[in-house]
Amino acid sequence: MAVQLEIIKEDSRTRARLGKLHTPRGIINTPVFMPVGTQATVKTLTPEELKELGAGIILSNTYHLFLRPGHDLIREAGGLHSFMNWDGAILTDSGGFQVFSLGDLRKITEEGVEFRSHLDGSKKFLSPELAIEIQMALGSDIVMAFDECTPYPATREYAKESLERTTRWLKRCKDTLTTTDKQALFGIVQGSMYEDLRKQSAAEVTELDLPGYAVGGLSVGEPKELMYEVLDYTVPLLPKDRPRYLMGVGSPDALIEGVMRGIDMFDCVLPTRIARNGTAMTRYGRVVVRNAQYARDFEPIDPTCDCYTCSNYSRAYIRHLLKAEEILALRLMTIHNLHFLVNMMREIREAIKEGRLPEYRQKFFQDYGYEN
Amino acid sequence: MAVQLEIIKEDSRTRARLGKLHTPRGIINTPVFMPVGTQATVKTLTPEELKELGAGIILSNTYHLFLRPGHDLIREAGGLHSFMNWDGAILTDSGGFQVFSLGDLRKITEEGVEFRSHLDGSKKFLSPELAIEIQMALGSDIVMAFDECTPYPATREYAKESLERTTRWLKRCKDTLTTTDKQALFGIVQGSMYEDLRKQSAAEVTELDLPGYAVGGLSVGEPKELMYEVLDYTVPLLPKDRPRYLMGVGSPDALIEGVMRGIDMFDCVLPTRIARNGTAMTRYGRVVVRNAQYARDFEPIDPTCDCYTCSNYSRAYIRHLLKAEEILALRLMTIHNLHFLVNMMREIREAIKEGRLPEYRQKFFQDYGYEN
Repeated sequence: MAVQLEIIKEDSRTRARLGKLHTPRGIINTPVFMPVGTQATVKTLTPEELKELGAGIILSNTYHLFLRPGHDLIREAGGLHSFMNWDGAILTDSGGFQVFSLGDLRKITEEGVEFRSHLDGSKKFLSPELAIEIQMALGSDIVMAFDECTPYPATREYAKESLERTTRWLKRCKDTLTTTDKQALFGIVQGSMYEDLRKQSAAEVTELDLPGYAVGGLSVGEPKELMYEVLDYTVPLLPKDRPRYLMGVGSPDALIEGVMRGIDMFDCVLPTRIARNGTAMTRYGRVVVRNAQYARDFEPIDPTCDCYTCSNYSRAYIRHLLKAEEILALRLMTIHNLHFLVNMMREIREAIKEGRLPEYRQKFFQDYGYEN
Repeated sequence: MAVQLEIIKEDSRTRARLGKLHTPRGIINTPVFMPVGTQATVKTLTPEELKELGAGIILSNTYHLFLRPGHDLIREAGGLHSFMNWDGAILTDSGGFQVFSLGDLRKITEEGVEFRSHLDGSKKFLSPELAIEIQMALGSDIVMAFDECTPYPATREYAKESLERTTRWLKRCKDTLTTTDKQALFGIVQGSMYEDLRKQSAAEVTELDLPGYAVGGLSVGEPKELMYEVLDYTVPLLPKDRPRYLMGVGSPDALIEGVMRGIDMFDCVLPTRIARNGTAMTRYGRVVVRNAQYARDFEPIDPTCDCYTCSNYSRAYIRHLLKAEEILALRLMTIHNLHFLVNMMREIREAIKEGRLPEYRQKFFQDYGYEN
C-alpha cells in the first residue's frame, strides 16, 4: 500500500491516536490538518512557506484542476507536485463534492454526473473512472473515491440510495486505479445522520480493504453535536490500522473533538478563507483584524504567537493593509491562521503523547471562549 | 547632511558615476533602482523578500499614507520603517505629483493645493509645510520637496510660473524640515522641455545647497529622445558631489540612458505594475506570460534568469495561476521583474567599474530588441 499508518500511541481515555502516516513523499505526523490548495496553490503562499509552517501534506481539488488548466497539461508538466513545485504529500479530492454542489447545473446518473463548468458554462462529465484517471494524471499520493457527499438534511430513503451508489462507484474507482504502488485510494463512508446506514456504508466500504477511509457527509450544515454523535458510532466501524480522514472540518473545536473520536486527518478552507476576509484565529478566539478598534493597536495579532506575522507586524499595520487591499495583508493573515492550526495539531499530538488530551481540550475551550 | 554620495568612479566615456549613497539606514550602491511601496508595502512582497532581491532603498508615497492610514498613526507606530518592518532606507515623495494629477479635483494657490481625496471625496489640503511635516512623521531617510511636476506639453509661460512656484515652495520646505540630521531634503529641478528654464530652475534649486537633487517633470508623456535631450543639458547643471534622482523612470532603456547621462537614482511602478498584469521583463524583451502560447510551455520565464521564480516555476504554471487569479502569480511575477531591474542595475555598476558601459548598453539593446 502506498500509504500506511504507523500507530505510535493510543490514548487510554479517548479514541485519539498518535501516528505517523508513511507516504511516498515523506512521513506525516498525525493527527494532521491539511491546508487546502484548490487550484494547485495554497492561496497566497509558496511551497517553502508551507514547509516552514510545518505542513507536510496539502489537499488539492480534482474538479478545479480538471476544468483549469486540465489534467493532461498537469500530466505533461510531470504531475501536480512538479507543476506546483511541492515535494510534500498531496491528497486530491475526487471532484464529487463540487459537482454535486452545482445543484441545477448537474444531472446524476448511474454512470456519473453531467454538469456545467462554473467557468464557462460548457457541458462536462465526471464519472468514478474519470475522477480516478484525472487523479492518476495529477499523481497525488492519496486519491479520494468519487462519491456523493449526501446533503443535510436527507431522508432515510435518499441517504440509503446515495450511500449504495457511492459504494458501487467506489468499486469502479478501485478497479480504475492501476498505480496503487504510488497512489493510495481512500474510500468514503456516507449514510447521513442514520446510524444503521453509517454501519451499512462502513461495512461495504471497508470490505474493499483500502489504504485509508474518510468519513464524508459531515460538516454540511448539521449541528456540531450531531456530527460528534455520528463520529461516535462511525469511527469504531473503521479498521484501527488505517488512517481516518474527516473531510471538510477545520474549526478548532471540531478538530479537537474529531481527534478525541479517533480521526487522524482533517482539511478545510476555513483558516485560509477567513484569513483573506481579515479574521485571525487565535487561542483566545477570533480577532477580526479589519475592525476599527485595531486601527491604532500596535500589538501583534496574538502576542503569545510566534508565527512570522506576529513576530514582525502589528494589528494596526495589517488592518491598514487590509483596508488598502494590499496583497501582503492576505499573505500575513494566511500565514498566521495556518500556523495557528498546524501548531494546534502539534500541541494536540503532544497532549496525546503525554496522556493529557482531555485536559488540553478543557484548557483550550476555556481560553478560546467556547461553551464547554 | 543625513545622506551623502561617495563617488567611487566616474566613467571616462559617459557621464555615468559609480557611487555609494550613505544613508542613516545603510549604504546603497549607485546607480540604483528603487522599488515603489506606495501604501507602506511594495505590492505583494515582504521586506525580507525585498532584501533578498538586493533592494536597499524603497520609495513610499506621502499622498497615499496621508490619506490612509494617516501620518499621525504612522508616527505613533514609531515611523514608517517600524510600521512596515523595513530597516532599509526609504525615500518618500511629497504628494505633489499625486495631488496635481487630480485635475478638476484640485485647486492650486500660492499657499498649497486643495484637493478631494480619491478614497472618499473629502476635502483635503497639502502645502509645502504639511508635505514636510508628514514626511517628518513618516521618518523617511530622503524627503522630497513639494513641487509641481509640470505637465507635458506646457507653454513656456506656464512652465516658468510653475518652476518659480516650485522654487518658492522649496524654500518653505527647507525651512520646515528640522530633522536634517536624520532626513535629507532633495530639491527638484523643473522647467519642462525648455533649456533656459531648466537652467533657471537648476540655479535656483542648487543655490539652497541641499543633500540631493531630482530631475522632475520627465517621463510625463514626452518622446524619450526629448527626455534624453533634457537630461543632456540639465544634469551637468547639478553639483557633482550630490546624488541625482530621475523621478518615475524604470524602463530598461531609460535606466541605461539615464545612467549614461549622470543619474544615480531611479524609481518607477512599471516593473511591479506590469508584473501584476502578467508581463515579465527579460533581457530578451517582454514576455506576456498570460498569453495562450505559454499554456504548455514548461520552461521558466527566462531560462537564463536565476531569480526565485525562474528557478522554480514554469511559464505554464504561472500562466495557470494568472488565469485562475491566484495571488501567488502576482508574487512570482513581481519577484521576477524586480530581480530583473535590480540585477540590471548591478550589471550596469559592474560595467561602469570595468569601463565598458557603452558596450554593455549596445549588447543590452541588441538582446532586448530595442531600436538602437
